[in-house]
Amino acid sequence: MKTKYIEIDTKGNAEIIDITPHLEDMVEKAEILEGILFLSIIGSTAALTTMEFEPGLVEDMTKTFENLFPYKKDYAHNATWSDDNGHSHLRSSFLKTSFFVSVTCGKLDLGRWQQVVLIDFDTRSRQRKVVVKIVQ
Amino acid sequence: MKTKYIEIDTKGNAEIIDITPHLEDMVEKAEILEGILFLSIIGSTAALTTMEFEPGLVEDMTKTFENLFPYKKDYAHNATWSDDNGHSHLRSSFLKTSFFVSVTCGKLDLGRWQQVVLIDFDTRSRQRKVVVKIVQ
Amino acid sequence: MKTKYIEIDTKGNAEIIDITPHLEDMVEKAEILEGILFLSIIGSTAALTTMEFEPGLVEDMTKTFENLFPYKKDYAHNATWSDDNGHSHLRSSFLKTSFFVSVTCGKLDLGRWQQVVLIDFDTRSRQRKVVVKIVQ
Repeated sequence: MKTKYIEIDTKGNAEIIDITPHLEDMVEKAEILEGILFLSIIGSTAALTTMEFEPGLVEDMTKTFENLFPYKKDYAHNATWSDDNGHSHLRSSFLKTSFFVSVTCGKLDLGRWQQVVLIDFDTRSRQRKVVVKIVQ
Repeated sequence: MKTKYIEIDTKGNAEIIDITPHLEDMVEKAEILEGILFLSIIGSTAALTTMEFEPGLVEDMTKTFENLFPYKKDYAHNATWSDDNGHSHLRSSFLKTSFFVSVTCGKLDLGRWQQVVLIDFDTRSRQRKVVVKIVQ
Repeated sequence: MKTKYIEIDTKGNAEIIDITPHLEDMVEKAEILEGILFLSIIGSTAALTTMEFEPGLVEDMTKTFENLFPYKKDYAHNATWSDDNGHSHLRSSFLKTSFFVSVTCGKLDLGRWQQVVLIDFDTRSRQRKVVVKIVQ
């Protein structure tokens, strides 16, 4: 089992970043033909999932986050810690911080219009680390 | 690591299909006593999860999808691509396209009333492929 | 691949329990330096995810579950089975019953304020079992 890292600077505020190129690069450099990449983003205000990464859906996703887990709401977390990222935590817990993607014949098992994305829900810019465990 | 596939024709429109029998069959044929099945459904408008697969909950799930991610809404994705499946993409990103289920003593680690389901959120019938990586 | 179990008594009703100490203990006792723990909670009314486990967020999470998947609603599941846990099933299917956490240099790949939690959505106290498959 190999361990790799993806380090990414984000703007926070539900910024969605396509990390598929990083994964493809990893698969190519490690010459993985068959295997699984297990991704964990460190922290409790970010998440990993897949989507068709195009500007329309990025907009729709952002609005949906705000609709289901609004920024402005009386969160006990904010009241307790004089913080403003209660909604960021909730979004992260619902979308979850881990994801795996398998590899077959040297290619990620994704659809043509399906990308692996990192979403940073925090309310400020962050340096994010994704731990990638490669099982072959 | 072995790679298997489950190919399933769906009707789309949030059709929920119990794929547990396929997995049980796989475990039996490959004579897996201890291991993990890593499932990935290819595409960005479907998802994998577990539920008690009974008609009442299928109805409740369908209504909940519509309640949280309505079909009729001004999605930028639909406007950009003259498409009608913006909600399908959102549902897939929230429920996610990957799932794993472990195997102990030759049986899937699931509850008695817990099935692994494929949900096709697209607005048309589709041929879906689930990649299953078997780790022992 | 080793198989371990975490057995926990819960109060149900969306009780959130931090299971990180159990996982840390497991990593220490099995002397795992590099690996992945694959967790599956058995049943269709519970879930696993991560969060900053502090009372404010526990309260915010609980309110959000109730807001998105209310207890009092005309669920077909409840009508069919004279049951009252339709909402518990929906919450479990959305948050999902499996989660993995990787281990690097003998430590769980989690943030400083990020814990792995078990959430029991059922409407009564339960004895819960989490199956943990350790891959090294």
